[in-house]
Amino acid sequence: MSQSPASPIKVGIVGGTGYTGVELLRMLCQHPHVKLTSITSRTEDGMRVAEMFPSLRGRVDLAFSSPEKAELTSCDVVFFATPHGVAMAQAKTLLAAGVKVIDLAADFRLQDTKVFEQWYKIPHACPDVLAESVYGVVELNRASIAKARVVGNPGCYPTTVLLGLSPLFGGAPLIDLHDIVVDAKSGISGAGRKAEVSHLLAEAADNFKAYGVAGHRHKPEIQEQLDRMAGAPVGLTFIPHLLPMIRGMFSTIYANILPEALGVDYQKLFEDHYRGEAFVDVMPAGSMPETRSVRASNTLRIAIHRPGNGRKLIILVVQDNLVKGAAGQAIQNMNLMFGFPETAGLSHVAISP
Amino acid sequence: MSQSPASPIKVGIVGGTGYTGVELLRMLCQHPHVKLTSITSRTEDGMRVAEMFPSLRGRVDLAFSSPEKAELTSCDVVFFATPHGVAMAQAKTLLAAGVKVIDLAADFRLQDTKVFEQWYKIPHACPDVLAESVYGVVELNRASIAKARVVGNPGCYPTTVLLGLSPLFGGAPLIDLHDIVVDAKSGISGAGRKAEVSHLLAEAADNFKAYGVAGHRHKPEIQEQLDRMAGAPVGLTFIPHLLPMIRGMFSTIYANILPEALGVDYQKLFEDHYRGEAFVDVMPAGSMPETRSVRASNTLRIAIHRPGNGRKLIILVVQDNLVKGAAGQAIQNMNLMFGFPETAGLSHVAISP
Amino acid sequence: MSQSPASPIKVGIVGGTGYTGVELLRMLCQHPHVKLTSITSRTEDGMRVAEMFPSLRGRVDLAFSSPEKAELTSCDVVFFATPHGVAMAQAKTLLAAGVKVIDLAADFRLQDTKVFEQWYKIPHACPDVLAESVYGVVELNRASIAKARVVGNPGCYPTTVLLGLSPLFGGAPLIDLHDIVVDAKSGISGAGRKAEVSHLLAEAADNFKAYGVAGHRHKPEIQEQLDRMAGAPVGLTFIPHLLPMIRGMFSTIYANILPEALGVDYQKLFEDHYRGEAFVDVMPAGSMPETRSVRASNTLRIAIHRPGNGRKLIILVVQDNLVKGAAGQAIQNMNLMFGFPETAGLSHVAISP
Amino acid sequence: MSQSPASPIKVGIVGGTGYTGVELLRMLCQHPHVKLTSITSRTEDGMRVAEMFPSLRGRVDLAFSSPEKAELTSCDVVFFATPHGVAMAQAKTLLAAGVKVIDLAADFRLQDTKVFEQWYKIPHACPDVLAESVYGVVELNRASIAKARVVGNPGCYPTTVLLGLSPLFGGAPLIDLHDIVVDAKSGISGAGRKAEVSHLLAEAADNFKAYGVAGHRHKPEIQEQLDRMAGAPVGLTFIPHLLPMIRGMFSTIYANILPEALGVDYQKLFEDHYRGEAFVDVMPAGSMPETRSVRASNTLRIAIHRPGNGRKLIILVVQDNLVKGAAGQAIQNMNLMFGFPETAGLSHVAISP
Repeated sequence: MSQSPASPIKVGIVGGTGYTGVELLRMLCQHPHVKLTSITSRTEDGMRVAEMFPSLRGRVDLAFSSPEKAELTSCDVVFFATPHGVAMAQAKTLLAAGVKVIDLAADFRLQDTKVFEQWYKIPHACPDVLAESVYGVVELNRASIAKARVVGNPGCYPTTVLLGLSPLFGGAPLIDLHDIVVDAKSGISGAGRKAEVSHLLAEAADNFKAYGVAGHRHKPEIQEQLDRMAGAPVGLTFIPHLLPMIRGMFSTIYANILPEALGVDYQKLFEDHYRGEAFVDVMPAGSMPETRSVRASNTLRIAIHRPGNGRKLIILVVQDNLVKGAAGQAIQNMNLMFGFPETAGLSHVAISP
Repeated sequence: MSQSPASPIKVGIVGGTGYTGVELLRMLCQHPHVKLTSITSRTEDGMRVAEMFPSLRGRVDLAFSSPEKAELTSCDVVFFATPHGVAMAQAKTLLAAGVKVIDLAADFRLQDTKVFEQWYKIPHACPDVLAESVYGVVELNRASIAKARVVGNPGCYPTTVLLGLSPLFGGAPLIDLHDIVVDAKSGISGAGRKAEVSHLLAEAADNFKAYGVAGHRHKPEIQEQLDRMAGAPVGLTFIPHLLPMIRGMFSTIYANILPEALGVDYQKLFEDHYRGEAFVDVMPAGSMPETRSVRASNTLRIAIHRPGNGRKLIILVVQDNLVKGAAGQAIQNMNLMFGFPETAGLSHVAISP
Repeated sequence: MSQSPASPIKVGIVGGTGYTGVELLRMLCQHPHVKLTSITSRTEDGMRVAEMFPSLRGRVDLAFSSPEKAELTSCDVVFFATPHGVAMAQAKTLLAAGVKVIDLAADFRLQDTKVFEQWYKIPHACPDVLAESVYGVVELNRASIAKARVVGNPGCYPTTVLLGLSPLFGGAPLIDLHDIVVDAKSGISGAGRKAEVSHLLAEAADNFKAYGVAGHRHKPEIQEQLDRMAGAPVGLTFIPHLLPMIRGMFSTIYANILPEALGVDYQKLFEDHYRGEAFVDVMPAGSMPETRSVRASNTLRIAIHRPGNGRKLIILVVQDNLVKGAAGQAIQNMNLMFGFPETAGLSHVAISP
Repeated sequence: MSQSPASPIKVGIVGGTGYTGVELLRMLCQHPHVKLTSITSRTEDGMRVAEMFPSLRGRVDLAFSSPEKAELTSCDVVFFATPHGVAMAQAKTLLAAGVKVIDLAADFRLQDTKVFEQWYKIPHACPDVLAESVYGVVELNRASIAKARVVGNPGCYPTTVLLGLSPLFGGAPLIDLHDIVVDAKSGISGAGRKAEVSHLLAEAADNFKAYGVAGHRHKPEIQEQLDRMAGAPVGLTFIPHLLPMIRGMFSTIYANILPEALGVDYQKLFEDHYRGEAFVDVMPAGSMPETRSVRASNTLRIAIHRPGNGRKLIILVVQDNLVKGAAGQAIQNMNLMFGFPETAGLSHVAISP
């Protein structure tokens, strides 16, 4: 472990009653350099956190407080585990008070406010803050995150797609940019802790379906980042599906190798690209990653396949949608922003079985 | 099969958007003597039934209509698949029009209106109708159901407990009436199609808990019937639990054999008692009934155990909570009330695996 | 219903201890024109069928018998619910005795024996019988199946892919044959009733993975039929995945529309193509098929999507892998081969929830 | 945290390929005072541990070695995560070499060798070692475990029953010893990582059943400890059930309060009894413990209920069968045996959702 700083940083969470909120609590309450000082909930003001989440009994001794009462400006960093629209409304005040902001919703993900407004149906409240914010996939933007005051923590699906494809960009063209297919599958916790009939166990268990085929909000996010990485518009097809399980995300990515790039050793390319990364595991050739191999851990695993050694490159990516896909990645961002070891508080081993 | 009547009976369903409603539809749409004529839903007036339940596409060609529009008085029988309080408000009108009533809720289960009002917190709207109603466990009340105009379809838990214990009553005393323990477990569909956070897949899957320990509404129902069967007050402990699965109910019943009854052959007692019953299966000695062995069928299976041939009698009972525990039993009641073969429209074989 | 023939046909099942076997039993024991006369199992000779499958207690009164004892030659038709290699060893004898054969394994699926031998690692025992056999997707080969003595019942995956794509062939070219991607997902019952650690609940529940990426045995079967339908070699990518649930199969098919075919109304094309089919349901535009909507029924549902009305055609197909994907389709074939109504014994409504 | 000893202790695991083995690895690889030096498997000699358990990739850099090659005598402590019979065969040699032994199987659980031989069908190999061994429920035997060379780690069911009942013993008689009923439910990982058809996902998911009703091996273990705690023979009924989920154990315990003890405050009794315990949580009055509230953590939670304030005392106990019920408790024992803080390496927060 690393030597701890003189004193831990003060951390606040806005909107702690959802799944990303409780996951932040699970990991932050064990973080060596963090002191949880406030957690807000408009609806649960005064309720003990451990009363709502018995899994935290004896570990988190805080009560929810209304946003008004919470002294967020005295924090060193505030996580927003809220629906979109909340973080951008409070970011300016917090920044002015010297508080860093990590938003787990969409307010600081899309750089293009027009795209944001088209998909989220509200005007962006602080384009200037958005302009300085950094898109928080650590493995892509490490240097700028370390200097950032505001980070837009990426969506769960985009994390798998961007880390699954990024080794293919930056050098000579390798794949056909006109046709990339992402067939993605997510555990239902990704839908959040909302009372919806379609997410009842009696509806969603023992069942599988696609959703958002006409257009999922993570698509423009993936599109914007892919276009940037590729340096050109990418023809992306993105179809998410819902898995009858709680945690775990799996993306099956289909790309066509360019004729001139058929000779490339893609296994080696990926291994070289991610060598030294603490949370990205390029599995040996022929591996079949399983979502359970990352359950409740911050690790993302990738396997590269090329059936018949042909032109179709198939990239399999697994992560825990609540950890590397949300809370874990947010803490990884925090570690960078405060100069902590990148793995601090993130050493959980996956739960298996 | 039986010869069909000149023409099928006209059947209406009030409240068809819940799980007992769609289960009634699944079974009634294949019933040889039934014509579904109306199904009501205040909230979904005009929506095609098959739009809400795609499993019925091509099988049920009806739309939901508001209770006002539905011509229920022209039906031969109306099923109430509603919360308690609805059936008792409409029963008189329907009976006056010569329509028979089968309520799948609690309005006609408890004979004692004071007990009803204590547990359901509303006054009973028609004690006189209640007085003529019959408690609809066919195997217990076959004769009176055949003559009934109003049937109170039993709760799912009570069906397992009453059919599990009834062979022990009626003759010489066999078990200690002061201490009967029922440890019951139910699939989550028993909780109904209501948007509640605690029933989300992400909350209820991979999880097990007890509930209603302080008092479940099925307890007074079991108590009233047990006291009646035993001819004396029974000391009943009833603890329900929630299983991380959709369908299936399992009751583990613990009774103490009286010293003078230790010599009784309980396996034979149960087999004799239920010989000839189409929907109650007393399994061979030593059997371990599984909920999947009755999945989606109207069969209830019972196994009798007596560890070490001692004084503790353990009765294991399984059923599908939505079929024998609700919709199937309601149709079994209808068959009797209209002189159809008891098994008409109920010949579904359990789904396995 | 249809008027029953003078007497039911005599049906035998070889290998009745697996999931397709018990599913055949569930459906055949209720079939109006069938009498089950023998069911074989080398390992379980003498055991009551209902002892192994309690779901059949009171419904199937047969015992397993060894292949030697079973008088299969006195049957009208024999189903093989066995591993590959068994049916082809017995087909000649049965045909000579006037018994029709329906193989649920792979012996009569692949027309090219070289391909069969490459993938199944054994020589084909009866190429001449293979030559007269018919590939049993009723909606594709209805006429020839009606005249067939031997039917190769298709694999579960191929059924979804072929029925999902066939409306696109036969007329003017519509899609790019060089690049069709099938991302398929199956419930674990498709893996059969074999004791394997990787299929234990503790391993496979709460988990998702791809498998057979390097090459699944259903690929050559799909390939052969697709090439035939397209009249040209098709560039097919097929990646199967394993769902943490028992039943249900979902194929997400990605095809690129040819420039000259961008104006076609694919929704109408599919609806016209399947109009009148009893077991193929083309859902309304914008529908999201769910596997539970066909659970335990012989229906296959298809939805057509075209995000942004672009060049990518996305076809979503669901079926129950054990019914339309196996036992149900086999019975549908039998109905044709014996002149029964195609829906006889197959009217099960999907179980929901 | 505690200051680490000069150097970590050397730990060996015999039989590391099962669920308790991989769970020991998950927790020991993060333990601050432990160095894993060898892990044996006769069948997997030479295979990388992380190849069999990808969840450990990058965390456990060991290969399985055959028992012969493993230098277990150079360890400070050896855990046996094996079937019964293995530990007792090697214990003498290890003890002679100064190695402490913690057996997760049954060899050192039952003090009475006759009972052991009756239930496990083999003679006990080392009664003298058994005589000095300690039954490893820390909260019951803390002092003797701290001095022990050999610990018999308790069964998962016994842990819940003994910790659920122990506050009731030791003072004035409170409950009727003639009739205690334990209705227990376990996730399927308790059955181990064995290829058995009955534990396939397609068999055990969506299903619930009782098992071992005639006699489960954990019954004599519970009986022996209960008799000891009560100082008299206890009339125990123990019925285990199998839950359709991976992890989690729930025991519902029914006891009859003696007339003279009806006035006791049982909530306070339990709270006082377990005050200060790190891993036993007595929940507030009226609580409903859920298995997920302890998932993957070493905490055991208890809730006390007394419906209608009557004579029936109902004790609800939850734990993770693989942690407090197995590997976690074994490490808790190790911590005591080596003078480490009892919570060292056991601070995992439960995974929720």
